[in-house]
Amino acid sequence: MGQEIQKVFADHTLCLSVDVDGEWCNDTPQVIVDFSSRTAFPRTIELCREHGAALVIGTTAITKEDVDHLRSLGQDVPVIQSFNFSVGVNVLKMILREFSSYLSDWDLEIVEVHHNRKKDAPSGTALLLKEATGRNCPTHSLRMGGVPGDHSVFFSNEGEVLELTHRALSRTVFALGALRAAQFAVTAEPGFYAFEEVIACAPKKSSS
Amino acid sequence: MGQEIQKVFADHTLCLSVDVDGEWCNDTPQVIVDFSSRTAFPRTIELCREHGAALVIGTTAITKEDVDHLRSLGQDVPVIQSFNFSVGVNVLKMILREFSSYLSDWDLEIVEVHHNRKKDAPSGTALLLKEATGRNCPTHSLRMGGVPGDHSVFFSNEGEVLELTHRALSRTVFALGALRAAQFAVTAEPGFYAFEEVIACAPKKSSS
Amino acid sequence: MGQEIQKVFADHTLCLSVDVDGEWCNDTPQVIVDFSSRTAFPRTIELCREHGAALVIGTTAITKEDVDHLRSLGQDVPVIQSFNFSVGVNVLKMILREFSSYLSDWDLEIVEVHHNRKKDAPSGTALLLKEATGRNCPTHSLRMGGVPGDHSVFFSNEGEVLELTHRALSRTVFALGALRAAQFAVTAEPGFYAFEEVIACAPKKSSS
Amino acid sequence: MGQEIQKVFADHTLCLSVDVDGEWCNDTPQVIVDFSSRTAFPRTIELCREHGAALVIGTTAITKEDVDHLRSLGQDVPVIQSFNFSVGVNVLKMILREFSSYLSDWDLEIVEVHHNRKKDAPSGTALLLKEATGRNCPTHSLRMGGVPGDHSVFFSNEGEVLELTHRALSRTVFALGALRAAQFAVTAEPGFYAFEEVIACAPKKSSS
Repeated sequence: MGQEIQKVFADHTLCLSVDVDGEWCNDTPQVIVDFSSRTAFPRTIELCREHGAALVIGTTAITKEDVDHLRSLGQDVPVIQSFNFSVGVNVLKMILREFSSYLSDWDLEIVEVHHNRKKDAPSGTALLLKEATGRNCPTHSLRMGGVPGDHSVFFSNEGEVLELTHRALSRTVFALGALRAAQFAVTAEPGFYAFEEVIACAPKKSSS
Repeated sequence: MGQEIQKVFADHTLCLSVDVDGEWCNDTPQVIVDFSSRTAFPRTIELCREHGAALVIGTTAITKEDVDHLRSLGQDVPVIQSFNFSVGVNVLKMILREFSSYLSDWDLEIVEVHHNRKKDAPSGTALLLKEATGRNCPTHSLRMGGVPGDHSVFFSNEGEVLELTHRALSRTVFALGALRAAQFAVTAEPGFYAFEEVIACAPKKSSS
Repeated sequence: MGQEIQKVFADHTLCLSVDVDGEWCNDTPQVIVDFSSRTAFPRTIELCREHGAALVIGTTAITKEDVDHLRSLGQDVPVIQSFNFSVGVNVLKMILREFSSYLSDWDLEIVEVHHNRKKDAPSGTALLLKEATGRNCPTHSLRMGGVPGDHSVFFSNEGEVLELTHRALSRTVFALGALRAAQFAVTAEPGFYAFEEVIACAPKKSSS
Repeated sequence: MGQEIQKVFADHTLCLSVDVDGEWCNDTPQVIVDFSSRTAFPRTIELCREHGAALVIGTTAITKEDVDHLRSLGQDVPVIQSFNFSVGVNVLKMILREFSSYLSDWDLEIVEVHHNRKKDAPSGTALLLKEATGRNCPTHSLRMGGVPGDHSVFFSNEGEVLELTHRALSRTVFALGALRAAQFAVTAEPGFYAFEEVIACAPKKSSS
């Protein structure tokens, strides 16, 4: 993931790095991006305060206390936290949360496809999308080859079908989401933001 | 279309009928459904006033003056007017209008598939969806066999793809939309409504 | 089904009809098409012998003895028998039977979608396609709205996915298959043919 | 590509390497894999003769004379040459070559999707699939985000649709094809083989 982030952030200067081999810093960072493990968390908070840097954090195993620390840090700098930095998944989630009720009398089923090394089924994202529909519906999990991750939500009545499908092409997804969050952070007011709020600020047109 | 409507409205009583062979009426209608040609329009307005009946009208070739007549009729009874009574297409339109801006830096293309007897390309619905995205994008038209009508909107960036697809299964689509509009009309306040407003009133749960 | 057949055979003359209301005949038929129930079977055989007519039969509930009768009839006239007259499903079956072994080290899963009134799962066609792959694989059944019937076979390895999907658009499918079988029958040698043999005789180019 | 090959061939020992920085060899190779540029070609032939090694070659820009050299090399060792080492694309090509004639009265269209950096349209693979159908049909090219490469062939008549879709997940595709060719080569008789012939020898079951 670290490599993906550095590739996607290539236009920006890396001036602070923290990993298992240690830490180096040659300038004051505007934004700190942390997609590492829980163990790095306390030092990440320290570094943000030390440098007055904004934070983009995708660490998954954080505790309720950690979130409280992020909220208080958000009083001084912009903090963007999410468990899933895929723009498409977050947009799909928002669509389902808002429009599923319009199709409450339609049938609803979810299909997800992932590589054959994935152990859990249904995927966490499938559960998250199902929750966004506000309904309990059948989910189907395919485990095939090297598929990075497809999720399809099907609504159907007697005369029509509406299909909403998200497909991850590679792990770049999350790095691109982190970049979008960082671009938001450099100009944002201090605060504790969900990634959905970042997305809801339509980005300036730029080459994808 | 008339037959489709009668099939879908089977639970309701037909008490007024107007067609080329004439007109009969054996009771006071609550709702009048008109999916016929422009020529029937004046008589339709008369009948609504005469019976105090709500109106669901899908006639396509109506003029600006006709719309004014519908608005004034809407002061006395509920009037629901649309050029497309497909629930799915209208929901897709609403989704695109609201969320396309969140993906303004993603590539966007539209693909539509229709039976090989369809002369125009792209389809009217494809143009309507494109307009809802607020962007000018490539559209691709396939003309194959007996396909009733598929429309796919693809958004993609470097790491992910979001696909929104609507598929019509048969002409029942529009009759089901008319039924939904009629169910709305019997309890609605007088007014001139777009079909989107009907959809936005989440329906009571019922078997699809 | 009878109506579908008459619509698709519109360019041909109907000169013999048998149904619950009785039987009429005003000329010698070249081909007799029987998609009715088992009860009609004996009379169908009689009529073919009487008129020297070819037979296209899609009756599903026929017994082993019935098949023997069809074989002996095949010594005098062309007899085409199948439990599924969809050209696409039969072609897909042939593709899977011949090429699945080339992908024996790929993952394989089948997904089928049918209207919510369908009781059985997986569908008979899904089982038939699975058998054609010569492998035991997971099958997923979606039951949604009015979908006539979709079947998708997915092969995948670490780097690629091959998807083979058949979609029925309406019950016309089977009538079109019967027409193709009848066109084959009028010029064929006497014999007992599977529908696959009819398909394998590439048809003369004609508008679809 | 060289890196992809080494990753996929990880279970095998690399004992000969040739690149722009030079050449090293610490043992006798069984198979030489060449996916480099035309310039490496003469040396590749020499090395195969020198070591009596089989050859798997995917170099695209080779000349007619080069192919003659490969044929004569094929008299002494197994030589497998192809311009596309994707198993799925080759299987799809074989399916279309064999079964398209069964659907000659169906409509046919091809859709391909590639990343927005791809300049040419339609893709070479789309043209190759079109040629395999033996028909001239419309092709549609979408250029979106980072899509590695999707190709869909649609057949449709009045009542049904048959869709054959290949999706590349990553550049691993071609390395996996090269591995399959190499596994074939170590046990094959000397000869000049197309990759299709390798595929047609159903592989021993192995984890994908």
